[in-house]
Amino acid sequence: MPKNKDLLGLENLTKKQIDTILDNAKNFKDIFTRSVKKVPALRGKTVVNLFYEPSTRTSKSFEIAAQRMSADVINITTSMSSVVKGESLVDTGKTLEAMKADFVIIRHGMSGTPKILAENIKASVINAGDGFHEHPTQGLLDLYTMREKLGDIKGLKVTIIGDIEHSRVAKSNIFALTKYGAKITVVGPPTLIPSSIENMGVKVEYDLKKAVENADVVNILRIQLERQAQNLFPSLKEYTKLYKITPDILEYAKRNVLVMHPGPMNRGIEISSEVVKMKNSVINEQVTNGIAVRMAVLYLLANRGL
Amino acid sequence: MPKNKDLLGLENLTKKQIDTILDNAKNFKDIFTRSVKKVPALRGKTVVNLFYEPSTRTSKSFEIAAQRMSADVINITTSMSSVVKGESLVDTGKTLEAMKADFVIIRHGMSGTPKILAENIKASVINAGDGFHEHPTQGLLDLYTMREKLGDIKGLKVTIIGDIEHSRVAKSNIFALTKYGAKITVVGPPTLIPSSIENMGVKVEYDLKKAVENADVVNILRIQLERQAQNLFPSLKEYTKLYKITPDILEYAKRNVLVMHPGPMNRGIEISSEVVKMKNSVINEQVTNGIAVRMAVLYLLANRGL
Amino acid sequence: MPKNKDLLGLENLTKKQIDTILDNAKNFKDIFTRSVKKVPALRGKTVVNLFYEPSTRTSKSFEIAAQRMSADVINITTSMSSVVKGESLVDTGKTLEAMKADFVIIRHGMSGTPKILAENIKASVINAGDGFHEHPTQGLLDLYTMREKLGDIKGLKVTIIGDIEHSRVAKSNIFALTKYGAKITVVGPPTLIPSSIENMGVKVEYDLKKAVENADVVNILRIQLERQAQNLFPSLKEYTKLYKITPDILEYAKRNVLVMHPGPMNRGIEISSEVVKMKNSVINEQVTNGIAVRMAVLYLLANRGL
Repeated sequence: MPKNKDLLGLENLTKKQIDTILDNAKNFKDIFTRSVKKVPALRGKTVVNLFYEPSTRTSKSFEIAAQRMSADVINITTSMSSVVKGESLVDTGKTLEAMKADFVIIRHGMSGTPKILAENIKASVINAGDGFHEHPTQGLLDLYTMREKLGDIKGLKVTIIGDIEHSRVAKSNIFALTKYGAKITVVGPPTLIPSSIENMGVKVEYDLKKAVENADVVNILRIQLERQAQNLFPSLKEYTKLYKITPDILEYAKRNVLVMHPGPMNRGIEISSEVVKMKNSVINEQVTNGIAVRMAVLYLLANRGL
Repeated sequence: MPKNKDLLGLENLTKKQIDTILDNAKNFKDIFTRSVKKVPALRGKTVVNLFYEPSTRTSKSFEIAAQRMSADVINITTSMSSVVKGESLVDTGKTLEAMKADFVIIRHGMSGTPKILAENIKASVINAGDGFHEHPTQGLLDLYTMREKLGDIKGLKVTIIGDIEHSRVAKSNIFALTKYGAKITVVGPPTLIPSSIENMGVKVEYDLKKAVENADVVNILRIQLERQAQNLFPSLKEYTKLYKITPDILEYAKRNVLVMHPGPMNRGIEISSEVVKMKNSVINEQVTNGIAVRMAVLYLLANRGL
Repeated sequence: MPKNKDLLGLENLTKKQIDTILDNAKNFKDIFTRSVKKVPALRGKTVVNLFYEPSTRTSKSFEIAAQRMSADVINITTSMSSVVKGESLVDTGKTLEAMKADFVIIRHGMSGTPKILAENIKASVINAGDGFHEHPTQGLLDLYTMREKLGDIKGLKVTIIGDIEHSRVAKSNIFALTKYGAKITVVGPPTLIPSSIENMGVKVEYDLKKAVENADVVNILRIQLERQAQNLFPSLKEYTKLYKITPDILEYAKRNVLVMHPGPMNRGIEISSEVVKMKNSVINEQVTNGIAVRMAVLYLLANRGL
């Protein structure tokens, strides 16, 4: 098996490779309970956080992961980057390579940019979300959380709710979960479910109750209020009426159905506050696990162990 | 005495607790004279600087304090935060808790937000300024500076000049100084002095000369040009004429009156450049002491020693 | 020879002092090939990156240089700084001094600001570009690159192409290269070549072919699209037609002429993509060398060895 320099998506990883990441993540998560939450694994390495889209949650999660590996971190956000000065992505990448960056974590609004970057520079590239394509570390942390809580993923019914079309979270979840033999159902407004999605091995529903029926996991996507063209929705009120997850809806799912959300949440829109508070809601644990899987990815790529 | 997780204000601290902070700050200040200005006390701890209002001075002071304790620091400012995406303060706090932040330093335009945060997360919360309420580390550094320069604070006359109503610096100073038995006078335009302020144990003056008469310390507040509703002032010109501190005014105070200002200064508005240069002006030493008291607060909260 | 606290420009350094920096830079560059790209030389020192103009390349290069020396770095950019609140440069400097900053790296739109700062504070000040004056570390990294690739600089023909008038890169190059006995030619639109430039010991050409003829090095300046008053140009199209460096133009230069550019590049405007790809193009190596010379400058100033 070829050893990877980059993590661009989950589509092309094997189940065994994903297992390796999750197993390592478990060890890194144990560090968080120590008084000194830090290991020297990446001391003297330079990690560049290159974000062309605003993000706090993901960029700070990567920054903390890098700090806990003792790496040095450089943050570059669009507003301050040379992009404003008209520099191309590849030239920016070559500059970071010349600076001897060991990792470039990139988020970009256009699908495929991490791949272009990875092909052009020696540094390890990690995709932190590209267009409507993938967000692999989110997929990994979701998988980690399911495995930790429910054990074997094979045969589990996982329902993903919301704007499937524009969600890289949904795509990375689907790529990973199908490798593990989970049964995936997606549900949302017809205008936000791509017609080709069934080819990915998932079942499409438009009725929320049917979609949630007997589910082991519900993964609730964030409605991107700020970037969604409103005309794809009937209306926000209509969306909430039809697709908001409430305790009543969860009555149709398995008892103790795992409730997940990638955050930040729009309470009262895609998820009710009562659901957030349920004891089987693992939304905050997902955040913790996100740092652990990112540490594992950094570690494995640095050692060409993936 | 209950050991505190957070520092939300000086109002509810005892004199003994404040003494503990100031005593520790002295030790940390000694570190600044070393070649390696750093101790390993908070290695492997994560400090989050969460600023909902712009600030350089205070946020960088906390960042340097954390670095000199060997902690890892994450900066989150409003413009990049998920607040833009509509996430609530408590959800942001829960996310930081899930990231295993040890400290959240928060500045927010609304009074009481640090308290709400502190009640909802396990991390230690430090108030870096909330609305018109408190700015406890500023109060501590002011007190530290007075104690270092003048010894016992009991019986000292401290005059606070400016916009008392909207000043969290004034409030934290008053809460602390009254515990030490200082005699506090506040002075400023009548529209900027709250009627209830006398209940805090201070004397109100509207005439600058009378207010400064025989003072041991003058603490000159910054006029918040950018946030002050102008109609509370007669006019800036009028303010300067009536309340600007000049060498002439200081003739009414004690010889060698200590001159303080929290910065950044509007020279020529609330303070004249001649006053800044006086040898009893300790404005820059306040900055140095600010880092020392913040190191002490981090240290004591980390060890539940407060 | 007096030992310098600051690096304000190359004009007042001797050839011997520049040699000292370049020799040290060579040692620091060797560190980049190690697994742990880091030395403890500046542990416990505080480096402040104070940028009043947007910059990614230079500010991040300094930040990485400081990290690889194990210093702690604080980034202050205009948008977040107290400048907005009306604080003067010297007051900001005094505040940083009071914070016990060891280094202040300053970029400012006005020539001479680093000097003013240096005269007022105890911290070492490094000029990261001031107005149309100097950008000494860029000059140093250019010199380092030439020396590494071509050996002795004496007698080399170096051609600098572009907007000479507004370029601090050109000025720092000229100050340094003349000390080494290089023969310098500048070329560009007549409106962008100051009439006094010949007094700096350089030859002026307006014809690109003549200027490049027999050159050992071409140093291509970036056209500052975002800040250049357009009326100084005939037009961008005209500029490109007359001054863009292409493989054809380089036929007039020495075989294997060294191609340099400070970045970020405007491909197709001042430089063609074919030229960027030539094997004698050292544009990315300049970036690597930039970190090495900045580490050397930090090291030497910290030890008063310059």
